[in-house]
Amino acid sequence: MKKTITVRLKKHKYNIIISPSTKTFFSSLRKQIKTKTFFIISDKNIEKLHLKSLVNLFKQYGYNVHTAVISYGEKSKNIKNLSYLYNKALELGIDRKSCAIAFGGGVIGDIAGFFAATYMRGIDFIQIPTTLLAMTDSCVGGKTAINVTKGKNIAGAFYQPNLVWINTFFLESLPQRQIKNGLAEIIKYAFIFDKKFYNYLADLFENEIISSNDLDYIIYKSCFYKAEIVEKDERETIGLRAVLNFGHTYAHCLETATNYNRFLHGEAVAIGMLFAARLSLELKICKREVYYKVKNMLNITAFNLDTKNKPIKFLSLMKKDKKSVDGNINFVLIKDIGEVINKQVADKMVLNVLKKFRSI
Amino acid sequence: MKKTITVRLKKHKYNIIISPSTKTFFSSLRKQIKTKTFFIISDKNIEKLHLKSLVNLFKQYGYNVHTAVISYGEKSKNIKNLSYLYNKALELGIDRKSCAIAFGGGVIGDIAGFFAATYMRGIDFIQIPTTLLAMTDSCVGGKTAINVTKGKNIAGAFYQPNLVWINTFFLESLPQRQIKNGLAEIIKYAFIFDKKFYNYLADLFENEIISSNDLDYIIYKSCFYKAEIVEKDERETIGLRAVLNFGHTYAHCLETATNYNRFLHGEAVAIGMLFAARLSLELKICKREVYYKVKNMLNITAFNLDTKNKPIKFLSLMKKDKKSVDGNINFVLIKDIGEVINKQVADKMVLNVLKKFRSI
Repeated sequence: MKKTITVRLKKHKYNIIISPSTKTFFSSLRKQIKTKTFFIISDKNIEKLHLKSLVNLFKQYGYNVHTAVISYGEKSKNIKNLSYLYNKALELGIDRKSCAIAFGGGVIGDIAGFFAATYMRGIDFIQIPTTLLAMTDSCVGGKTAINVTKGKNIAGAFYQPNLVWINTFFLESLPQRQIKNGLAEIIKYAFIFDKKFYNYLADLFENEIISSNDLDYIIYKSCFYKAEIVEKDERETIGLRAVLNFGHTYAHCLETATNYNRFLHGEAVAIGMLFAARLSLELKICKREVYYKVKNMLNITAFNLDTKNKPIKFLSLMKKDKKSVDGNINFVLIKDIGEVINKQVADKMVLNVLKKFRSI
Repeated sequence: MKKTITVRLKKHKYNIIISPSTKTFFSSLRKQIKTKTFFIISDKNIEKLHLKSLVNLFKQYGYNVHTAVISYGEKSKNIKNLSYLYNKALELGIDRKSCAIAFGGGVIGDIAGFFAATYMRGIDFIQIPTTLLAMTDSCVGGKTAINVTKGKNIAGAFYQPNLVWINTFFLESLPQRQIKNGLAEIIKYAFIFDKKFYNYLADLFENEIISSNDLDYIIYKSCFYKAEIVEKDERETIGLRAVLNFGHTYAHCLETATNYNRFLHGEAVAIGMLFAARLSLELKICKREVYYKVKNMLNITAFNLDTKNKPIKFLSLMKKDKKSVDGNINFVLIKDIGEVINKQVADKMVLNVLKKFRSI
């Protein structure tokens, strides 16, 4: 299957190519990118598996390629590694006409994207995601960021790639836990937008094995929804894009509180979606059956639903979240499968549910 | 005197207010900025002299004010201080609706601007420059950046302020060396754009004392030229804005090579302009009399013209400059007073002039 999604923004347009064909990718690259010099940013896991082949591929097509590798995982999305990338790029002679490539999961996409947004005040940028999570979520939309000591994604920029290449070949080496990690954000699109897609997923999860065709379809579906939202509200100014944060307020606390090393992002989002559903139930925004549907689908994908929550600490972390304004906490809450709303929730209510949520 | 320059960009418009009146400033602020919460970023020198009064002023007008102070000088424009600002802001509850204020010289403008551009992916931003250099140059145009170990202004963003307040009252506490530092960039505008302005300055520098009216005029003139260029070429894409880099290729090398602690930026630019003029002379782009005019005006302002140049090292630093593409060095060269051109110069020629320039 070969599918292309075109993301049309006000000042910028780019293609997401879902295809295993290197020819398709390079012919598109030749149209979009003028430079001969590429700077691939990757992590140690990808280095072992795929980096050499990608470098050789670029060389075969006549390009100059340089690489920088940082360690794997959310903890590497820090200011120290960003500083390493700036200096490394400078050393290698990467200039303002060169193109950076994020080759890895969401962490690499975020830090390489922030690097590309800020290196010499912005250079061209390609995303080649290697995880299901990155393919379905973070590679679309242009949100880039790094974590600082006291918070996740606190430093960042809106910066759109010039091209995205999704090649599910890279998923073959991905462990089951990582696949499930990606499924969380896919399920999120069903919860937010699409009852039919929810039913499709519910059927799918009854099977033991997800076929490659199914994978292509659900990646396409997720990118499509994300692109649609991003086209309408690139910088999250009219509140539309904010619905994509379903589950994320709690998730970010959880990741911060556990020092980014206990949960994968999708796992944290799954727990966060359950928390948001529980909050919706307590606020009588959704019926109990909706809450159960959310809970069951998350259970089906066998997440470890250890909540790790410390109510007082989590409340204070939530108040410091980027989505909070003047100390008031905003949540995306679920009314029905396929229908969410954005709502400010009183501290007391949040604390109340945080206390109950400990024992789930 | 009260003067306002409106900078009109494609997607953004903002005012530069040149006035000592706090009323004028706050009435403009009330129109431009919606938040009640401000985060003033300043340095230790300004903290001693003016920070408290500014904080009190904001409080008088009913605003919440938080502050962060970093040490003084180009060396503080680093990634460590940026990281400090992110964490401090988070701690203080600065959110995405808050407004950051750069209160200091160019260094503070650069790092606070980069902070504002990237904190929670961008928050509102006001410039209140306190040095002549910042008032005439860096506060206009939206270039923000920090230095990395291996290069100056390597990490940065184009990020426009919502308001600029130039109050020459702050110059009264400024040492002579700092005033001269600012004059360098003012002289630059004369060299690049305006023979009449050059003559005006040549007359002015014959006097011992520069009056406050003269100061207001030359600040206005510089901001006007800068704003005009920035309006036409915000992101330096059509090459127009590049002329503002007159003297800067050499200046950046000099600052990097001397670890940012030997020269003030304007001093380095003055030496850099002389180097560019010398290069222009050797390339027969300008006549000897033009070269002397450049040299004399820079001498009038009594810069320390120690070149500190190590030819081989400087050549390699220049090749790594942001303005270099594929290792070719671009210079802004002078044809006549008021007329410059952008030109790629061969390494051999650059090295040749670097060698001669040591003995000036």
